[in-house]
Amino acid sequence: MAKYEQLAAQIRQQIESGIWRAGERMPSLRKQTEHSGMSLMTVMHAYQLLESQGWLIAHPRSGYTVADNIQSVTEPEKAAVETAESVDINSFIFDVLQASRKPYMVNFGFAYPDPGLYPRHQVNKSLMHAARNLPVSNALDNLPPGNDTLRTMIAQRYAAKGVNISPDEIVITAGALEALNLSLQAVTRPGDWVVVESPTFYGALQSLERFGLKALSVRTDPKTGIDLDSLERAFQSHPVKACWLMTNHQNPLGFTLTEGKKRRLISLLKKYQVALIEDDVYSELYAGTEQPLPAKAFDTTGNVMLCSSFSKSLVAGYRIGWVAAGKRAMDIQKLQLMSTLTTSVPIQLALVDYLNTRHYERHLKQLRRTLDKRKKTMCQLLSRTLPPSVEIIHSEGGYFVWLILPQHADAMAIYAQALAENITLAPGDMFSPGTQFNHCLRLNTSFELDERHTQAIHQLSRIIQLHIGHSH
Amino acid sequence: MAKYEQLAAQIRQQIESGIWRAGERMPSLRKQTEHSGMSLMTVMHAYQLLESQGWLIAHPRSGYTVADNIQSVTEPEKAAVETAESVDINSFIFDVLQASRKPYMVNFGFAYPDPGLYPRHQVNKSLMHAARNLPVSNALDNLPPGNDTLRTMIAQRYAAKGVNISPDEIVITAGALEALNLSLQAVTRPGDWVVVESPTFYGALQSLERFGLKALSVRTDPKTGIDLDSLERAFQSHPVKACWLMTNHQNPLGFTLTEGKKRRLISLLKKYQVALIEDDVYSELYAGTEQPLPAKAFDTTGNVMLCSSFSKSLVAGYRIGWVAAGKRAMDIQKLQLMSTLTTSVPIQLALVDYLNTRHYERHLKQLRRTLDKRKKTMCQLLSRTLPPSVEIIHSEGGYFVWLILPQHADAMAIYAQALAENITLAPGDMFSPGTQFNHCLRLNTSFELDERHTQAIHQLSRIIQLHIGHSH
Repeated sequence: MAKYEQLAAQIRQQIESGIWRAGERMPSLRKQTEHSGMSLMTVMHAYQLLESQGWLIAHPRSGYTVADNIQSVTEPEKAAVETAESVDINSFIFDVLQASRKPYMVNFGFAYPDPGLYPRHQVNKSLMHAARNLPVSNALDNLPPGNDTLRTMIAQRYAAKGVNISPDEIVITAGALEALNLSLQAVTRPGDWVVVESPTFYGALQSLERFGLKALSVRTDPKTGIDLDSLERAFQSHPVKACWLMTNHQNPLGFTLTEGKKRRLISLLKKYQVALIEDDVYSELYAGTEQPLPAKAFDTTGNVMLCSSFSKSLVAGYRIGWVAAGKRAMDIQKLQLMSTLTTSVPIQLALVDYLNTRHYERHLKQLRRTLDKRKKTMCQLLSRTLPPSVEIIHSEGGYFVWLILPQHADAMAIYAQALAENITLAPGDMFSPGTQFNHCLRLNTSFELDERHTQAIHQLSRIIQLHIGHSH
Repeated sequence: MAKYEQLAAQIRQQIESGIWRAGERMPSLRKQTEHSGMSLMTVMHAYQLLESQGWLIAHPRSGYTVADNIQSVTEPEKAAVETAESVDINSFIFDVLQASRKPYMVNFGFAYPDPGLYPRHQVNKSLMHAARNLPVSNALDNLPPGNDTLRTMIAQRYAAKGVNISPDEIVITAGALEALNLSLQAVTRPGDWVVVESPTFYGALQSLERFGLKALSVRTDPKTGIDLDSLERAFQSHPVKACWLMTNHQNPLGFTLTEGKKRRLISLLKKYQVALIEDDVYSELYAGTEQPLPAKAFDTTGNVMLCSSFSKSLVAGYRIGWVAAGKRAMDIQKLQLMSTLTTSVPIQLALVDYLNTRHYERHLKQLRRTLDKRKKTMCQLLSRTLPPSVEIIHSEGGYFVWLILPQHADAMAIYAQALAENITLAPGDMFSPGTQFNHCLRLNTSFELDERHTQAIHQLSRIIQLHIGHSH
């Protein structure tokens, strides 16, 4: 049993023995931390667990009270996901991904857009060109920071949006994930605190765990994004080294920070001298006419590492990403040299060839239109079929919707049953080290709602309804 | 400000205040080291920085003089290279690699064989085929462990040598370096002890540093390899988690462990329950008729992670390697999923296409013959030109020779001077966290001894002679 589970069990006994009575305020997190001698994170997790089990009720900005329906709550035998102690979350994510590989699956749990939307013939043609004209394969020509022309092209695309990034600060990586990992290593040592959103991209949680870092989850509104007052308090209470945030079309919630919020974020980071690892892989997939800028656009300190890739907008499987690393470009090159040496040369050259054809902008326009249309269609179907107690969170842009089910619903159980019916989805548990999203689901909206997918949505709605009913 | 910058600033002030005058010889690196109490590396960096800023002029074979136009020099805003104290070895290796990129360099410091020996037209053709026939780019089809056919082909090549490796334990990686790093992460936690050879591949030292591991260097004979009695004592005295060793054509020394020694190594590892990370990137490059087996061939415990790649034998820059991970295949897949997600799909398919052509064995035969011939020719030239006090260590296979100079010789100074004359080499300092090899050099013997390379060997011999003399 993890520490937070032990603490939760203790508190539950206290409630059962009448020490804390229904409706009564629980000690604040901070007080509980002092009492128990445990870390704030452990106490937080314990409270969240008790909340998810129906023992406590969370009140925004005023802590927790004891629930008055505690008699009717049946404690689940065992939490479906065990967090904190080990790499269980990784195993789970691994299982989810492996399950998605089966060809007959309907992949609402998929993290990429429908691969049918990629211009694969064009891109493969570019790879053929690159292969035909490949210079004597000299790995040294393409050591970090990577191909010069590709870096310049990426910088030019930023410049076209009014974002001033020098090719010199760009390092080409094996996808955005390597960029994010190298950035994290460049600014942290094991034991450091790193702020993540709550919920956050599970890759961030995995990386934090892998490098022995401590996650500080900051309250994040499904529509407006990270709460900057909470963020500032986090900076005041913890020696935070870095924030790992998505500012545009966040995964899994879908929000995009307003420009005002991005500016305030940047000024907070400056004030408290915290580095930003900005995961911006979805920003090309906006709806409407205006591409949201990265927060880095407003930074003057060189303290923002902007990570992105072509994987979500052009081609999956090539593994090409980059980081615009500001003042840490050199550190990141050295780290890359130690970890993967450099990015595949022909793949870099293929991207150069493709970007030279100038098809990319046309493709992106088409992709954005299609994703926007498909998302709207799917949201309509969802709102028609799902019970009214399910909240459908969808923002403009990207290709995810976030479903908030009634508190007692169990996303993991729904996930398991959907999987048994050959439908994948991403349960909320994937996006948090705690249990506070275990009644939420992320769905991919990028697939065409043909008969098979429409049918799957109906199936899924039935499963959800069943589970909401069951738990009463 | 890094130490070398502080030293550079000091020296600049000295020049400004007239301590060192235009045209005057600066103290030698060694003298400056004694005066300043700083490391040779720091002093070298400081001199190089001052040279790049126009304060000093480097003279082949006779150190540095003060520039006479120092009044007109405007100091660049920021040093071109920033090094921190802790990553000095990495910074240095980075500098060496960057220096090697210049086209006019004679690259005796190169870690790859002469790129002209790779069958680039064949391999590029395979990449073109792969690009033409690329399936709908679905990253999920090629999640870790990587392409099924490629893994089977690799297993079949082992089987042909009598090594029994299942495709199921093979994970495709971005080069051997990623394979080694993932293996290391799979069996260690920060603070753990890991055995390395002395001297060892610098990548091992970098990885140990990056993951907060402690290196235990075990005595290694230039001709017969790691001393197994010392290794057993290391196991007895320290809670060693893993060994990172090269059993065939070791870098930098060149030795290959005998089969008897490999068997004893495996039984020691079994007895003390220590994992082996076996770096076997050179084993295809044997001389004679019989390929040496990896130590893994003798393992029955699943505790050996055999890492290799196509980078040294077929193509550099594609970044394709693998690990035959034994019982840790699943752990490594999960780690890869977190770090680079997966290996570039078209590149994997290109390798499958190439291996299907069955050109590989023919190419390897040719490559082995050429490397063997060139090594012998170069060793002959070296033994004719180098002073008799220099010991030339060369084993069968691979493409490195190891020069042991008299103890008082300074490999870093020789490196610096050779670099000034456009010759790279790998100073012994790169291969050890200590200073015990600072009188040794590693040379790449894979280039054809044309006039330019022959000339460079003569130049190098002169530099070495000079330095052996100088230091007396």
